[in-house]
Amino acid sequence: MITHPSFDVRPWAVHESTLNPDALARTESLFALSNGHIGVRGNLDEGEPHGIPGTYLNSVHELRPLPYAEAGYGYPESGETIVNVTNGKLIRLLVDDEPLDIRYGVLRTHERTLDLRAGTLTRQLEWCSPAGNAVRVRSQRLVSFTQRAIMAIRYEVEPLDTTLRLVIQSELVANEPLPGGGGDPRTAAVLESPLLLEENASAPDGAVLVHVTKGSHLRVGAGMRHEVTGPGDVHVETDGGGDVARVTVTARVAPGERLTLVKYVGYGWSARRSRPAVHDQVVGALSAAATTGWDGLLAEQREYLDEFWSGADVEVEGDAEVQQAVRFALFHVLQAGARGECRPIPAKGLTGPGYDGHTFWDSEMFVLPVLTYTSPAAAADVLRWRHRTLPLAQRRAAQLGRQGAAFPWRTIAGRECSAYWPAGTAAFHINADIAHAVVRYLEATGDREFERETGFPLLVATARLWRDLGHHDVRGRFRIDGVTGPDEYSAVADNNVYTNLLARQNLNAAAELAVRHPDRARDLDVSVEEVAQWRDAAAAMYIPFDERLGVHPANEGFTDHAVWDFAATGAEDYPLLLHYPYFELYRKQVVKQADLVLAMHACPDAFTPEQKVRNFAYYEALTVRDSSLSACTQAVLAAEVGQLELAYDYLGEAALMDLNDLEHNTRDGVHIASLAGTWVALVSGLGGMRVRSGQLSFAPRLPSDLTRLCLRLRFLDRRLEVDIRAEEATYRLLDGEPLTVVHHGTTLRLGADPLTRPIPAMKAGPRPQQPPGRAPARRGAGD
Amino acid sequence: MITHPSFDVRPWAVHESTLNPDALARTESLFALSNGHIGVRGNLDEGEPHGIPGTYLNSVHELRPLPYAEAGYGYPESGETIVNVTNGKLIRLLVDDEPLDIRYGVLRTHERTLDLRAGTLTRQLEWCSPAGNAVRVRSQRLVSFTQRAIMAIRYEVEPLDTTLRLVIQSELVANEPLPGGGGDPRTAAVLESPLLLEENASAPDGAVLVHVTKGSHLRVGAGMRHEVTGPGDVHVETDGGGDVARVTVTARVAPGERLTLVKYVGYGWSARRSRPAVHDQVVGALSAAATTGWDGLLAEQREYLDEFWSGADVEVEGDAEVQQAVRFALFHVLQAGARGECRPIPAKGLTGPGYDGHTFWDSEMFVLPVLTYTSPAAAADVLRWRHRTLPLAQRRAAQLGRQGAAFPWRTIAGRECSAYWPAGTAAFHINADIAHAVVRYLEATGDREFERETGFPLLVATARLWRDLGHHDVRGRFRIDGVTGPDEYSAVADNNVYTNLLARQNLNAAAELAVRHPDRARDLDVSVEEVAQWRDAAAAMYIPFDERLGVHPANEGFTDHAVWDFAATGAEDYPLLLHYPYFELYRKQVVKQADLVLAMHACPDAFTPEQKVRNFAYYEALTVRDSSLSACTQAVLAAEVGQLELAYDYLGEAALMDLNDLEHNTRDGVHIASLAGTWVALVSGLGGMRVRSGQLSFAPRLPSDLTRLCLRLRFLDRRLEVDIRAEEATYRLLDGEPLTVVHHGTTLRLGADPLTRPIPAMKAGPRPQQPPGRAPARRGAGD
Repeated sequence: MITHPSFDVRPWAVHESTLNPDALARTESLFALSNGHIGVRGNLDEGEPHGIPGTYLNSVHELRPLPYAEAGYGYPESGETIVNVTNGKLIRLLVDDEPLDIRYGVLRTHERTLDLRAGTLTRQLEWCSPAGNAVRVRSQRLVSFTQRAIMAIRYEVEPLDTTLRLVIQSELVANEPLPGGGGDPRTAAVLESPLLLEENASAPDGAVLVHVTKGSHLRVGAGMRHEVTGPGDVHVETDGGGDVARVTVTARVAPGERLTLVKYVGYGWSARRSRPAVHDQVVGALSAAATTGWDGLLAEQREYLDEFWSGADVEVEGDAEVQQAVRFALFHVLQAGARGECRPIPAKGLTGPGYDGHTFWDSEMFVLPVLTYTSPAAAADVLRWRHRTLPLAQRRAAQLGRQGAAFPWRTIAGRECSAYWPAGTAAFHINADIAHAVVRYLEATGDREFERETGFPLLVATARLWRDLGHHDVRGRFRIDGVTGPDEYSAVADNNVYTNLLARQNLNAAAELAVRHPDRARDLDVSVEEVAQWRDAAAAMYIPFDERLGVHPANEGFTDHAVWDFAATGAEDYPLLLHYPYFELYRKQVVKQADLVLAMHACPDAFTPEQKVRNFAYYEALTVRDSSLSACTQAVLAAEVGQLELAYDYLGEAALMDLNDLEHNTRDGVHIASLAGTWVALVSGLGGMRVRSGQLSFAPRLPSDLTRLCLRLRFLDRRLEVDIRAEEATYRLLDGEPLTVVHHGTTLRLGADPLTRPIPAMKAGPRPQQPPGRAPARRGAGD
Repeated sequence: MITHPSFDVRPWAVHESTLNPDALARTESLFALSNGHIGVRGNLDEGEPHGIPGTYLNSVHELRPLPYAEAGYGYPESGETIVNVTNGKLIRLLVDDEPLDIRYGVLRTHERTLDLRAGTLTRQLEWCSPAGNAVRVRSQRLVSFTQRAIMAIRYEVEPLDTTLRLVIQSELVANEPLPGGGGDPRTAAVLESPLLLEENASAPDGAVLVHVTKGSHLRVGAGMRHEVTGPGDVHVETDGGGDVARVTVTARVAPGERLTLVKYVGYGWSARRSRPAVHDQVVGALSAAATTGWDGLLAEQREYLDEFWSGADVEVEGDAEVQQAVRFALFHVLQAGARGECRPIPAKGLTGPGYDGHTFWDSEMFVLPVLTYTSPAAAADVLRWRHRTLPLAQRRAAQLGRQGAAFPWRTIAGRECSAYWPAGTAAFHINADIAHAVVRYLEATGDREFERETGFPLLVATARLWRDLGHHDVRGRFRIDGVTGPDEYSAVADNNVYTNLLARQNLNAAAELAVRHPDRARDLDVSVEEVAQWRDAAAAMYIPFDERLGVHPANEGFTDHAVWDFAATGAEDYPLLLHYPYFELYRKQVVKQADLVLAMHACPDAFTPEQKVRNFAYYEALTVRDSSLSACTQAVLAAEVGQLELAYDYLGEAALMDLNDLEHNTRDGVHIASLAGTWVALVSGLGGMRVRSGQLSFAPRLPSDLTRLCLRLRFLDRRLEVDIRAEEATYRLLDGEPLTVVHHGTTLRLGADPLTRPIPAMKAGPRPQQPPGRAPARRGAGD
């Protein structure tokens, strides 16, 4: 399965043993480091060759016009797109005047390791220059979780055979040229030279550059500061100008000696603060980092991660790849959200320019579940960001003639950036997804301060939208017509089951909190009549059901549509959206990602067990998984209906999406939501974890290949461990007050002592069939 | 009602008694002359001031890129847009060195008359230059119906008070600057300098310019030739260069004397022929025109129109405005189609740049009905054009993964130019509309040659599309899901009644002709099995019906949607598409143009009389008529259900759409389909004319204000007159063999003698209500 022979499987690391120049862009994404505020792609220290150079600051974006051959009312005129900011990771090396460039000379060895416990990317290489001078280079970089403005690099060179004159050039470079975009509409727009220089200030051991983005007027500061150690006479000088600042270190170094550079890079940005303020912010961060020192930063990094893993690790026995993948996934999810601090989590995190750097609904529905149960403060921060953009969402709703809030389908700073309304504006479910994430967070944390200040206003604004968007028909059913659910192969349909179910939850949750916070309700002009309307709409919510087939149609009328002609669809015709017109996808029974299946996960009590079995089998036959978001949800429901081997196959697909580049676009950044889905597939899938009315429950079952699955998670200020084996599961409270949990329907009172319970047998039906050629790769030997 | 006080109402002319400089663009459209091949807007001879300068050759277009912020599979990358070709109508006058310009000096009188029997636009003015020199100018222009490459102008100047030196500059000018477009997406794209010069050749009395369009590589030739008569020494010289050619006439003219110029302008274009060939074509046409002479062209023009009116005129007594309007309408419809000769009829004819010069489905559904019964050869030509573009439509179908043909929603040369697929690609009904027009033409003419060579291949290709586009559901119903009907305020819906009914007719007609032309069927690979499939699909066609309301939903599920909040919609919110997002329009019960009502007109036997009454009343309450295509169809059904005064009101709206500029966009060209709708409202509406299975039938009834309505039309090589009064109707065969016609359900055998029959009384229900503020203006005193 590993398409990359240079990767090997390690439990706590991603290790690359040789460099594959053709896969550079992909490995840059996999080896990206981030703390949610700063993101740096795994570009080689010397900058070239590269796939896509990338350094990002969360929410630093540029505006670009959105053109329409035929415009329409309410179409966004301007889009936000991620900016490649000043590159601070550049360290060039001259070996007796010859630049280290792996395309020349002989690269004897090249190894890179992403260490998931240390939070570092290390690189070691031996290179022999065309003139025959060999050096060993070791570099290690981190983006600090504890000092959010700081990235740091330790760079060490050692001559192998003879004394050499070594020159290290450490740089800050803005407006790097970027490779052009492809024809795929999902590829990010390329922006040339988005940064205008405001300041280029040098110091003896460093420099500060301050730029402003041209259209969005965001001020970006980047600074560097160095510590050099080396033998004998080491000469350090600073120069630069324009978009470049450079510190040059020159020394003669003998074999056995080492020239070492520690580079601290600090970043800051602001839409409001002045150039001096941003300058000083960067310099201050650098001072703090230098005071901490390289070893101090390493120690802080490990301590931060130790704390994270203590409440988040997932141990998998019986599948080393999945073991590696889930830790890799958790690491990237943490990286994406750890220090965002009221900023969004983009679909690619800060690992690449894919999707223009936008965040989507999957932040709330796939990423936040992981953070809520492993790093809840990060989840709260993302929702606080949504709350901060509430005025924009309310303005958008007003533009659309709606009450309440209409959150953007895709955005960086809160403005709607979707230029295709049937899959953008019409996808109102984003609003219920945000509400769902609020409810989930509140159930998992009991955070009343958040509930009052952030959760309740979000629930009110979204509940108002739903009440306004739907209407009662003559039979008294509350209908939500003409909207698009998560499945992008249907659009602008009536009564999407997913949307209606989540809207119902949203309305009910808003009504409930209005009772609990009468003062806040008053502040928000929520009257008892309005609350009654929410309850009434929720109670009357229309959930279509096809009695003839005994399944829920994804949307009203869906099951009357023609089934896609899968037999006539070749492997080369996928993903379908690149080979068939939208109208054809929308009018047929074919599913990109099964939103009806996702509805069964998100609203487990809205379906009977029999309905789940029938629905799952029905949608399995229609779902092509052209979305990276699909497999994990299918794993969850496969497990719930007892299809454990199928669940395991889907788990494998979710887990290896990026490591094996299954969708061939990891080059543009890793799929944060699909990575999160690895955890979801294991915890909610094989672990059967749900929270029902605040009650944490599990229904663990393992596929035959896995001998053990041990989950750790945080819930209501406790850390909990669920240790699952084939026949039994052991529940362990790692800290905190006693807690009730449910094991396969039985309530357990969990205190200091672990409790072990047997796993009941389950008889599953025949394995559901997928469309021809679209079955997941078989992972297990089982069945 | 006449918003233009300078217009008066004449039965056979549109006469403007003073010039309103603010209404120039509108009058340029109204006074445009065309023969379907050449179109010239009613710009002032001297070129300025102008609203929009315009000279068009049918199908001469340029390509322009269609931008998409988010592209999708199958989106057209390039659009076709009408080109303002070389202006040959320009005649400037210098009066003792002062240019005639109505913005300077004193315009004492200015009259223009569009003569609907002569086929000319005449202009007469008296102007006193700033220096006090007064002249009278008379000009008359025509675009010849008989010599299709020719426009001609007679221009005469007469000093009024003193002898003057007069200089007439007659020009050909290419690449005239055009005014910029507005923000309305429907406004045509502005193209700057689309023509590349190939030749500028002068002769003593004229010149020829040959250009090529930059992107579409169409060669356009324009030539002029002059006859000058004047007193004494008249000096004529030719000069020019680049995009201009100029013939200058200089003379001293005394009061009572006249300087007269006859200008023949010839046009030719080709995608294939060489520069010399196009040049010679133009020169040849000019020779023929000069040989015919000005008086000869006038005589030919009148003769052509006499012949037309003899089988087309509609006399209206009791409403002089409608009398004028229907003749104005017929004249423009004739102009749009007369000599197109296998070219399309654009939505604006050749009267302006609106809609980019594209043709749409309304050509087949509104314009061709008029031509079919008044100038059937012109109708056949349009369908021959469709047939000629069949390979492009088949290629488009293949691109969309479809069988058969997918004709473009909007086009000039046959390529799909719609950049918004929900209202473009998804509006597959265009294909059934073409088939409907074929059937109508065949029923009206019995043209077997056309049937074999043109009609049958069109029906086969479109029937194949329908068979492929629909599917049988488990109940055996043949469904057509996810398409857009004519009403643009719904989109991408299942089982649009209009579409399904017309598709049914299309399938049945194709099956019928396959039996009649087995050899042609063989040529087209039509097997008996395929024909059986067409019949089967037609027989099983699903026509949804809302049993609860007793009405047909426009689309399946339509009547479950919320009714638009008309009470909250102000007059300034119309047209709705400029003030509300598409998603909101699509999900509500609100209708731009009532396609269900149009279905009742096009397929009269698919509905019971009771259903028609109920349906009409239901959709009246939902239809806002943001489309100029709506009123005439509502007039037809209002008349059928006995709402004669309402029918009369809608007739008035259709009739005055352009003359009174009801939609404020006549400036971009007249609405050919709405003009045609005037005839439809009178003939199919008040006359109750239908053709049912080849049988011509009438059910005439007059609203109280009209004392007489006398229709002439052509049917199966006969001319027929129906003379309708309040109590009776007289049928008269003007030539040809006896014919059966139906009068209010009674079959009459009509021979040499006229037959008079009484009109039966009808009891109508209450007048249906329209949305608040959207009732048509009351026209009659009746009710």
